[in-house]
Amino acid sequence: MKARKNHHNGIKAVVMGGGTGTFMVLSSLKHFVSDISAVITMADDGGSTGVLRDELGVLPPGDVRQSLVALSSSSEVMRELFNYRFSTGTFNGHSFGNIFLTALEKVTGSFAKAVVTAGEILHITGQVIPVTTDNVRLCVERGDGSIVQGQKMMISSGFFKGEKTRFFLEPKATINPLAKKAILEADLIILGPGNLHSSLIPILLTDGMSETLKEAKGKKIYITNMMTQPGQTENFSVTDFVDEVEKYAGKDAFDYVVYNDKKPAQELLDTYAKEGEKLVSANKKDFEGKNYKAIGENLVSSKIIPPKEGDKIHRPLIRHDGDKLTRLLMKIYFS
Amino acid sequence: MKARKNHHNGIKAVVMGGGTGTFMVLSSLKHFVSDISAVITMADDGGSTGVLRDELGVLPPGDVRQSLVALSSSSEVMRELFNYRFSTGTFNGHSFGNIFLTALEKVTGSFAKAVVTAGEILHITGQVIPVTTDNVRLCVERGDGSIVQGQKMMISSGFFKGEKTRFFLEPKATINPLAKKAILEADLIILGPGNLHSSLIPILLTDGMSETLKEAKGKKIYITNMMTQPGQTENFSVTDFVDEVEKYAGKDAFDYVVYNDKKPAQELLDTYAKEGEKLVSANKKDFEGKNYKAIGENLVSSKIIPPKEGDKIHRPLIRHDGDKLTRLLMKIYFS
Repeated sequence: MKARKNHHNGIKAVVMGGGTGTFMVLSSLKHFVSDISAVITMADDGGSTGVLRDELGVLPPGDVRQSLVALSSSSEVMRELFNYRFSTGTFNGHSFGNIFLTALEKVTGSFAKAVVTAGEILHITGQVIPVTTDNVRLCVERGDGSIVQGQKMMISSGFFKGEKTRFFLEPKATINPLAKKAILEADLIILGPGNLHSSLIPILLTDGMSETLKEAKGKKIYITNMMTQPGQTENFSVTDFVDEVEKYAGKDAFDYVVYNDKKPAQELLDTYAKEGEKLVSANKKDFEGKNYKAIGENLVSSKIIPPKEGDKIHRPLIRHDGDKLTRLLMKIYFS
Repeated sequence: MKARKNHHNGIKAVVMGGGTGTFMVLSSLKHFVSDISAVITMADDGGSTGVLRDELGVLPPGDVRQSLVALSSSSEVMRELFNYRFSTGTFNGHSFGNIFLTALEKVTGSFAKAVVTAGEILHITGQVIPVTTDNVRLCVERGDGSIVQGQKMMISSGFFKGEKTRFFLEPKATINPLAKKAILEADLIILGPGNLHSSLIPILLTDGMSETLKEAKGKKIYITNMMTQPGQTENFSVTDFVDEVEKYAGKDAFDYVVYNDKKPAQELLDTYAKEGEKLVSANKKDFEGKNYKAIGENLVSSKIIPPKEGDKIHRPLIRHDGDKLTRLLMKIYFS
């Protein structure tokens, strides 16, 4: 942990990730800091995003869209519109916001400009920054030396705890200078929660990211997931998550590791168990001798989030509570 | 012509139609009036609009979109975005603005609300009003008694000068109260230019429209097309256009008929002739004894408009000049 610079104008925060975890952190944290930047993963190639990338050659809009909505102070209608997903016909499965960013990239000629313009239209607080503007795919070299490219392929092939894997981007990606600047100026640098392999590792794999994190003087906090995913983070404990992050971000890249230590309701755990998903285990002994400080708290949302139309698995969700998490982040910041 | 009410706050204008003709009038006229309403045709069922109607059950967005862009004071990027048309993949042929209005209708639950919200997002001057919010299709009973429904079918079957046709809407449509109010309050009421059968007649066929026009105290002006269309307005003269309009709007519904009396460049006419499209003829003798005042002027745009990617027929265009037309409309207003 390095000395932080003085600041008199509130807190500058960077949130790195993509998907619903980052949406939740941004939605809550934006009320407590004076400057917030979302540094967003750019390796998604599944679903609506994947079709748009394949057919129109654009950069992946899905994760950026969610972060734009999280930081938007537009009317509820506009935010709903951006997240609206067509459920019939030609557009079936496509999110309107993804189509919006795709058309805007075509009109402005660059994804970076499209994101800035969309931010203006959505009246966002802070900024959304693609971690790279290079057009990359996530690949993994599996234990047997075979290489799998793309998220769809990874999900269908699966890889398991114990299997030695090496993730990489194809072609190489260089860090967006705006992302580098935001991280270097930030007082708080937060990674996750999010899908470890498809969201977080592609960020850490971006050329220049591990050096930037090393140089950054803000407090660096990794928020681990609450639930494991079969075939990806099967049976992972908190330290397994951290080990995987450090493999790509560099040893001791994060000062703090935040995890949930509260068991959600058994009925919820049972529905997750059916899909092979378990609570991430934490053993305090595992943290002994580590250079990071591990902090376990009750971070479970007590709201029962009803399943939505279009959810792959129809069940109530176990989710982080944005307010509890933000309170913990602030406590760490002011400690 | 009835006495106009006094007004001290500039001119209130209503422009009725859809498509590029109405786009042109709105784009120019908006700078000369203090209050402008676009009353838009709602019977389109071709192209991108037709697919969206068929697959998602929404009202036709295409003509409304063009009018929104015409009245928008948003950035050039936003206006371009709305008119952006995808040219490959799943979205091929779809206009982004159409997708926008469709998603917004789904989110807000009504097309009328979607149009108002889109108007706010695009920072429009004045208002865009669907002539009806009933979900209708245009039908025609041909000379032999057969009935053809929908624009695509009409274009492929064609009907000809001399053939006795009767157009109607299926089911019936009732005039949007906002359209009625705008027309009754307007100082200038303008119809066209636009496709006679697919754009203008569906407006006139709306229940309550001919009564509203009769009651309206503003100057009523019909702007005829410059070129005929084969199978639709084949060999039509200016008076043929007016006769067809009066058949649906009521006798003497319009006080003025405006037409172009300048021959465009012969090379342009030749490219149109290849498609069976001719200059609309005007014989001053035909206007004798009519209750409307016919005014012919040079209204041809001297700009050569280059063909665009995606145009059905690849050729330079013969178009009205918005400024010339607006100057004539103002001259009529102040006469």
